[in-house]
Amino acid sequence: MATESEMIAALARVFASDDPNLTVGIGDDGAVIKASSANLVAATDMAVEGVHFKRDWSTLREIGAKLAAANLADIVAMGGTPKYLLVSAGLSADFDVEKITELANGIKAEAALLGVHIIGGDISKSSEIVISITALGEVQSPIKRGGAQVGDLVVLSNLTGASAAGLAQLRAGISTSAFIKAHKKPVIDYKLGAQFAAPTTRVNSMCDVSDGLLVSLEDIASASGVAIEIDMNTFAAISGFTELSQCAAAQGIDVFEWVLTGGEDHAFIATTSKPIPAGATVIGKVVAGNGVNLLGVKQETSWLQKPGFTHNF
Amino acid sequence: MATESEMIAALARVFASDDPNLTVGIGDDGAVIKASSANLVAATDMAVEGVHFKRDWSTLREIGAKLAAANLADIVAMGGTPKYLLVSAGLSADFDVEKITELANGIKAEAALLGVHIIGGDISKSSEIVISITALGEVQSPIKRGGAQVGDLVVLSNLTGASAAGLAQLRAGISTSAFIKAHKKPVIDYKLGAQFAAPTTRVNSMCDVSDGLLVSLEDIASASGVAIEIDMNTFAAISGFTELSQCAAAQGIDVFEWVLTGGEDHAFIATTSKPIPAGATVIGKVVAGNGVNLLGVKQETSWLQKPGFTHNF
Repeated sequence: MATESEMIAALARVFASDDPNLTVGIGDDGAVIKASSANLVAATDMAVEGVHFKRDWSTLREIGAKLAAANLADIVAMGGTPKYLLVSAGLSADFDVEKITELANGIKAEAALLGVHIIGGDISKSSEIVISITALGEVQSPIKRGGAQVGDLVVLSNLTGASAAGLAQLRAGISTSAFIKAHKKPVIDYKLGAQFAAPTTRVNSMCDVSDGLLVSLEDIASASGVAIEIDMNTFAAISGFTELSQCAAAQGIDVFEWVLTGGEDHAFIATTSKPIPAGATVIGKVVAGNGVNLLGVKQETSWLQKPGFTHNF
Repeated sequence: MATESEMIAALARVFASDDPNLTVGIGDDGAVIKASSANLVAATDMAVEGVHFKRDWSTLREIGAKLAAANLADIVAMGGTPKYLLVSAGLSADFDVEKITELANGIKAEAALLGVHIIGGDISKSSEIVISITALGEVQSPIKRGGAQVGDLVVLSNLTGASAAGLAQLRAGISTSAFIKAHKKPVIDYKLGAQFAAPTTRVNSMCDVSDGLLVSLEDIASASGVAIEIDMNTFAAISGFTELSQCAAAQGIDVFEWVLTGGEDHAFIATTSKPIPAGATVIGKVVAGNGVNLLGVKQETSWLQKPGFTHNF
């Protein structure tokens, strides 16, 4: 293991920032950001080796990028613009400057997609890798889970289930595929997520799908005091559904298990009474009542009984 | 292990907040805080079981409070006012609602000392407990490590070394003492820390002593491009020094090893050209040059060669 100061120096190099609003950056007790007229939005996510990722399957760069993406998506899902990340990492004894640089470059590359800067963090020894990222952003008016209105259409940014399909393939001994790639590092359509918050297409409620689509739908229904009807037949029109169905058939899985309960896809799900943003798909509607009703899936289906993946609190 | 949703419900109960500036609290993708005219200050710290704490020695409440304190102290050390915490925790399989509530109550109790609210977080399974806290606060004008001026006096908020003394006693099989108490959960003089940032007594540079006093002094000297002279004879006048010296003698340790290199005390060290705040002790002065010169300790002392405890980056 490299010394802590060598690793911190490596991180300071990777994360060097020229953001003019960053008054104090890495290297002091805290980072200082100039006051903004926008409201502050903050989210945090932790990923643990063996639970959220395996080094046998993912590179450190992919692991870093994936957790950064999860945090950035949370800010976008609030209708916010991500600005800064703080990163804490518990690192196993094999870590050296090369490995921490690879992990940091993964975080930085994903953050750079949105012009986001890494402004601080902490490192520690630990027996397994644990990464905790806090994302900070700006939001004029947050889009909450509880804003769904009866009559809204339910819109999904992109097909869910690819990450679960990739995980199933990895477990089956397959080593490369588009789904495995998506599992290792989901490609998040931040632009479409931002479009959900744009004035002309602003949605009434919105949620990041990180714990499975069904969990997110249940969250929106419950927080909004409404019921949601999802028409599973609408999924056939979403890009990638044919390939996902073929993969599910090959693995002996109901494709809707992956679509509805697979986690870590980081799609955006929303309900809207405005025009549908280009690229999003209408998959259902908001009605009076409570809970989520799946049209086209038998409610007694066994996989529907299992809980979702992980939750924020 | 309790289900994740049971544990999240317990956390939501403990951390329930009525802060009027918190537009969106726990339970959405992110928390939203109303815009403020002050600058934002952010810091993050991670603690790992077996590295930063042991459950044999500390209660979960103490562990939670200690890490919250470390984060709150970072914000105070920037001259800021802590406002909010986000908490991520990797929890071992034995965790249930009772244990997570105890941990959360420790975090909440420490935060409540400063009117700070916990606004979000994440939990995960992990093999050992890992807690990562991000603290957010407000600051009008940050006090940096790099602000020390030649001619400044060096002031310390309270005696360092108590946590190291407590750790040594625990390792020696002693189970209760004032030092052990300080090791388990340091009592931080937030009020004096805030006094260092008050207009009439505002210091020129400031640093949280979390990794040992010597490391913090070296950080200030290096960031400010100055040298610091510390007169070890000044420590005798600081409250608790006699007891610490006696404890060190009983353990066969040079008391200055604990004072200078013991970690996790969370004192505030500063340099100032203004009146000395009541309760603080002048321990040295800032001079031209570089590095830290210890008057009263032989520079070839063996323990002076060992590095400090942990660093933020």
